Amino acid sequence: MNVTLKDVAARAGVSRSAVSRTFTDGASVSRKMRRKVEKAASDLGYSPNFLARSLTTRRTKLIGLVADNYHNPVFLKVFDLFTRGLQDRDLRPLLVNLSDETDPLKSVQMLKQYSVDGVVVASSTLSTDFAHAFRDAGVPVLHAFGRNVGTTQLHVVGIDNVECGRMAAREFLARGYTNVGFLGGPPMATSTKDRASGFLNELSDHPKISVSNAYADAYSFNAGRETMRKILNTSPAQAYFCGDDVIAIGAMSAIRDAGLSIPGDMGLIGLNDMEMAGWANINLTTIHQPIREMVESSIELMVSILDDPDRYPEVRMFPCTVVERGTLKPR
Amino acid sequence: MNVTLKDVAARAGVSRSAVSRTFTDGASVSRKMRRKVEKAASDLGYSPNFLARSLTTRRTKLIGLVADNYHNPVFLKVFDLFTRGLQDRDLRPLLVNLSDETDPLKSVQMLKQYSVDGVVVASSTLSTDFAHAFRDAGVPVLHAFGRNVGTTQLHVVGIDNVECGRMAAREFLARGYTNVGFLGGPPMATSTKDRASGFLNELSDHPKISVSNAYADAYSFNAGRETMRKILNTSPAQAYFCGDDVIAIGAMSAIRDAGLSIPGDMGLIGLNDMEMAGWANINLTTIHQPIREMVESSIELMVSILDDPDRYPEVRMFPCTVVERGTLKPR
Repeated sequence: MNVTLKDVAARAGVSRSAVSRTFTDGASVSRKMRRKVEKAASDLGYSPNFLARSLTTRRTKLIGLVADNYHNPVFLKVFDLFTRGLQDRDLRPLLVNLSDETDPLKSVQMLKQYSVDGVVVASSTLSTDFAHAFRDAGVPVLHAFGRNVGTTQLHVVGIDNVECGRMAAREFLARGYTNVGFLGGPPMATSTKDRASGFLNELSDHPKISVSNAYADAYSFNAGRETMRKILNTSPAQAYFCGDDVIAIGAMSAIRDAGLSIPGDMGLIGLNDMEMAGWANINLTTIHQPIREMVESSIELMVSILDDPDRYPEVRMFPCTVVERGTLKPR
Repeated sequence: MNVTLKDVAARAGVSRSAVSRTFTDGASVSRKMRRKVEKAASDLGYSPNFLARSLTTRRTKLIGLVADNYHNPVFLKVFDLFTRGLQDRDLRPLLVNLSDETDPLKSVQMLKQYSVDGVVVASSTLSTDFAHAFRDAGVPVLHAFGRNVGTTQLHVVGIDNVECGRMAAREFLARGYTNVGFLGGPPMATSTKDRASGFLNELSDHPKISVSNAYADAYSFNAGRETMRKILNTSPAQAYFCGDDVIAIGAMSAIRDAGLSIPGDMGLIGLNDMEMAGWANINLTTIHQPIREMVESSIELMVSILDDPDRYPEVRMFPCTVVERGTLKPR
């Protein structure tokens, strides 16, 4: 298998430089020459070594995919879509696990050592200090599931979480709930803050509706279940807008453990519409976040950033929709 | 951030060669020299570039992590443990998604281009031709969740799936079920074949027990649900040993949709004991596969293989245990 560039050149009857140019992005080579070289390379099973290429192109084709929550099944879909999309473009997904990391500078050093061409931060819970630190260190970065800040010089792909909070509130109003709550994710996450803000703001126009809020310490099943258990020991609301689907599924578990029915005794609405939300055991009414389209757009944007690192920062926002299933009483 | 080796050498007041040796695994450098260089590197925020190092060491520190099923939540745990474990050892997890790949030679070419130091195939559904093709191409490879074949020259970390099938059968016998079934994963997967073989073999000593089998076309919720739906239209058994937890959860959904109760009308036992099996909505009796220990051992073995690529192949098998929850009638 240790076929070299020299072997390919000999077989194709061309110069080594011609082989090298054929395998260098953007280098000039005639179509006829390219065909000859590719045929010889294929006959011999030659794969241009990416390290050798990287030294000339100064590109490794490695894209760091930064995640910090491995307890939320929605990320399995995110990983699947990202890895396929990057592979389809001849890029390589390097998974960076920052579950316990709190120091952006340590992560910058790690990414520098990794020699990634760019970084996708896929998280709404990791402090935005991380994306900023990567950018400040000169690493092309994109924040997926990030926030539209308006002034930050950062590429962002996300949803309007404030509007999602409003959507949940409007669903509750349309169904006649008069005492409702927000069961959010970690209070420091931008997604939590924005969802709470839209939810409470929309309801502030309806002074007769009682509103409460509570926060889970992670986007996870256990955090959702624990928080709902505590709520059930006080005076619970009639329906909860949950920070995301996995928190809602945890809450659902606590509600059923308490011998209560959904939506008979209590209503729930989630956010994400992950695969599991549609499982018959779960059947969760939720707000659909268009993850497939967001990941696809993130990859396209990253490719553009790699081509033009000075590209003007842009924020791409995707509309969400309510998916009606079985956890809210009828409108 | 563009600090060079030269800058570090100047600050530390040592030669460039000394700096280079400090950052080269296994190179000789005095403790005093190392301290000086590391202090200077830390003061200046210097990160040795891995591409430059790779050319001398011929190592990229990239480990390909090959997976082909992103519909099974158990893999989120596998990714979490693998990425943390590799990072802790200064190795880098490159995620390789072979969900739709059927040609081992194309994958070999991809991995060669990626210049990975080694590959962990984490799958019992991907044809073993892949691991063999990687090995034959000279890529150090380890098969996690693989099979103990006895003659294959391949490093394997796995469980005894035949014994797991026997364990499930013994649980059914101990509980007095007289008509039982195997609801397996994809028939071509070694895990499916071995679990079926142990299950049927153990029951062959009990001729009065009726045994049937059926196969889902993937280790996924939907495949489990569809297969159980078809079973329910025929004459179902009293209890099923499901290929894995996610198939069992799919089957559970179909059973409840049909208005039947678990374990009252039908019993289920899964395999894996993934986080979700313990969720109160699920509460699945299952066979625990010690994934944490298996991933840890896989990483240790991979590190040993990298140190000694000619290391004699070994098969590491991990015992499993039944975790009793709420989906089988009492013993």
